[in-house]
Amino acid sequence: MKAEIIAVGSELLLGQITNTNAQFISEKLAEIGIDVHFQTVVGDNPDRLDEVIGIAKKRADVLVFTGGLGPTKDDMTKETIVKHIGSTLVSDEEALFTIQQYFEKSGRVMTENNKKQALVFKDAIVLPNRNGMAPGMAVEKDGIQYVLLPGPPHEMQPMFTNFAIPYLLGVTGRKEVISSRVLKFYGIGEAELEYRIQPILEKQTNPTIAPLASAEGVTLRITAKAESLDEANKLIAPVEGEIRAIVGEYVFGVDDDTLSSKAAEMLFQNGWTIAAAESLTSGLFMAELGKEPGIGVSLEGGVVVYNEQAKVDQLEVDQGLLDEFGIVSSECAAALAVSVKRKFGSSIGVGLTGAAGPEPHDGTPVGTVWIGIVSDDAEMETYKLSLSGSRNANRRRAAFFAIYYLIKHMEKKEAKKMF
Amino acid sequence: MKAEIIAVGSELLLGQITNTNAQFISEKLAEIGIDVHFQTVVGDNPDRLDEVIGIAKKRADVLVFTGGLGPTKDDMTKETIVKHIGSTLVSDEEALFTIQQYFEKSGRVMTENNKKQALVFKDAIVLPNRNGMAPGMAVEKDGIQYVLLPGPPHEMQPMFTNFAIPYLLGVTGRKEVISSRVLKFYGIGEAELEYRIQPILEKQTNPTIAPLASAEGVTLRITAKAESLDEANKLIAPVEGEIRAIVGEYVFGVDDDTLSSKAAEMLFQNGWTIAAAESLTSGLFMAELGKEPGIGVSLEGGVVVYNEQAKVDQLEVDQGLLDEFGIVSSECAAALAVSVKRKFGSSIGVGLTGAAGPEPHDGTPVGTVWIGIVSDDAEMETYKLSLSGSRNANRRRAAFFAIYYLIKHMEKKEAKKMF
Repeated sequence: MKAEIIAVGSELLLGQITNTNAQFISEKLAEIGIDVHFQTVVGDNPDRLDEVIGIAKKRADVLVFTGGLGPTKDDMTKETIVKHIGSTLVSDEEALFTIQQYFEKSGRVMTENNKKQALVFKDAIVLPNRNGMAPGMAVEKDGIQYVLLPGPPHEMQPMFTNFAIPYLLGVTGRKEVISSRVLKFYGIGEAELEYRIQPILEKQTNPTIAPLASAEGVTLRITAKAESLDEANKLIAPVEGEIRAIVGEYVFGVDDDTLSSKAAEMLFQNGWTIAAAESLTSGLFMAELGKEPGIGVSLEGGVVVYNEQAKVDQLEVDQGLLDEFGIVSSECAAALAVSVKRKFGSSIGVGLTGAAGPEPHDGTPVGTVWIGIVSDDAEMETYKLSLSGSRNANRRRAAFFAIYYLIKHMEKKEAKKMF
Repeated sequence: MKAEIIAVGSELLLGQITNTNAQFISEKLAEIGIDVHFQTVVGDNPDRLDEVIGIAKKRADVLVFTGGLGPTKDDMTKETIVKHIGSTLVSDEEALFTIQQYFEKSGRVMTENNKKQALVFKDAIVLPNRNGMAPGMAVEKDGIQYVLLPGPPHEMQPMFTNFAIPYLLGVTGRKEVISSRVLKFYGIGEAELEYRIQPILEKQTNPTIAPLASAEGVTLRITAKAESLDEANKLIAPVEGEIRAIVGEYVFGVDDDTLSSKAAEMLFQNGWTIAAAESLTSGLFMAELGKEPGIGVSLEGGVVVYNEQAKVDQLEVDQGLLDEFGIVSSECAAALAVSVKRKFGSSIGVGLTGAAGPEPHDGTPVGTVWIGIVSDDAEMETYKLSLSGSRNANRRRAAFFAIYYLIKHMEKKEAKKMF
């Protein structure tokens, strides 16, 4: 089966945004064995979109559209396709209800043009939008599959994964099942990871191993094909073991784990509480942990102490210590961790200090970061980072590294408890 | 003049990389008045590329290709186009010299296939590559312009800006220039914004007005074409005035402003300092402000007080007040703002409290947020939000709304200072 991805939106042709949707969809289609032969971008122009559909029909079996499902007059993807395939638009009750709810809740008045978003092809399967108003849809016409998705990535991505992929799997009728296991790494670069597991990578054909770098570390996706899920998983397990034997120290989780979800899970399971004192990250570490539902049980709170005076005034960090070792030091990170732990009465304390940039801090090079972690029954740990990104890349990576070290700290605590 | 951008590379169709080249080139072409009508991505496949060229020739005057100029057997962009237009390939001496130099410098041995990179169409203008080995080229055939560029962005971008743009300006012989003004909005949806300025949108052809929604609010891009930059800007000014007259209250900045950069600029300019007490956002508000270099001068710091006890213990919020009005209340937001301002001795205090979800908080519906802002010379302001997103969308929007209200608060303070 061959696919073409058609992104609709003049903002793409004006270069105002990047077509990340094409990348996301291409990757997901590859995973289920559908080859993408073309990606096309066309503006908010019915005639040109119609022309693009005509060309795509001749060279692909699956046309995946993104964008142009919204309420404005520029949004004309549905209207153009419905004419092309000779269907009609009807209002979808569930979608209309979702839209009405949205407006009721926000106390804003629903304008007439918003109702347009609930219109779907009368013969289509509706793909629910859990993160926005416009539903997606999927329909087959003359042997061609038409899949329509909204443009905003945070709406499109979950819709595609949760509803379009199962639909397309049904269409392809593949018997072969695919199972994936994802290992999540932090603190090691993609190139180094690949280098260290090169012997394993080279001999593999089934399962395959695909590394991928992201803002939150590197992932390895181990994918096996077999007649059943069980058999596929049996192919994966020994390969995972081989990889962990070499680079297991950098693994912080699997599959859908994120740094914050893994840390929260460990805090919850052990009944530990945490507080943090943040300088260069100014709240980013706590904000990341705060992503997790129910975190209030474990996150006692913390302080943002950006400048030197605040560290002394708010956390009683010793001025003499700051004068001797500087703000960006192992000693300061440790003092922040100890002080905030005491102040909030938590079982774990974390301190973050560093020079985010763009200017060095009192002679400390940009990218130098110290992280301190202390807890009731463990030695103080401090870690130094030497980051080389922009100010905000450095701040983000400092927060992520702190969560990664927190997870490793808790792994050690858990191991100790077992004896 | 109409252009089509054709990116060649199977890695794009596999979703391994994003097509940032199309965005970059589109933006630059718009600036010199060349409209991009289509962007196409095709794999490393000569037949399919040939087909794509055939289609593009019928609908565009300028075909800009990226990728497939390298030394490997997958690289076949030149070879396919040269057949299509009936030219021949010759070795370019300067390009060959560059390649030889590159290998000499790196101490590596030049393999035969690397010479292939120096081949150019015999009738083409060569576009030098200052950051890699493969040169680009530009040639006209039967009224169609063919511009070939390398794929790696760090090679393509300077080549396009420094050599392709001047070539295309020569071809178009245009005098017309384009100027853009971007207005940035928060607190109003794209549909409502468009609805309210509909009369202005309808009558406009030059300048044009394009709305765009993003995570950080909505933008309106006003773009005018004229003989000079001055004249273009004169067309933009009255339209901006008309828009501001209707929806100016939602404008927080222009052009490259972000919520955090605008807030930081106003804090810096007025010498004001700020502290925040964050509950549901757990540091997100301060982390956003922390993006701005030099923020330490204005951001005194703050506290994360996630649970009820922390609010009482750390900020001496009155337990009776919490019992009477609840944690998610105007009164609690105000108390947080007042207390953190006093604690950190800042001129402005901000308090954030709310129910982020997924579960309601003590009967308060998910998405309810209260923001309090207080400062030395102004009345306490509190704002209620009723958000309808996921937990983390709600937290992000609460932090963004708080910065938006902070900007509006400071605008009022500035106006007061002027009297």
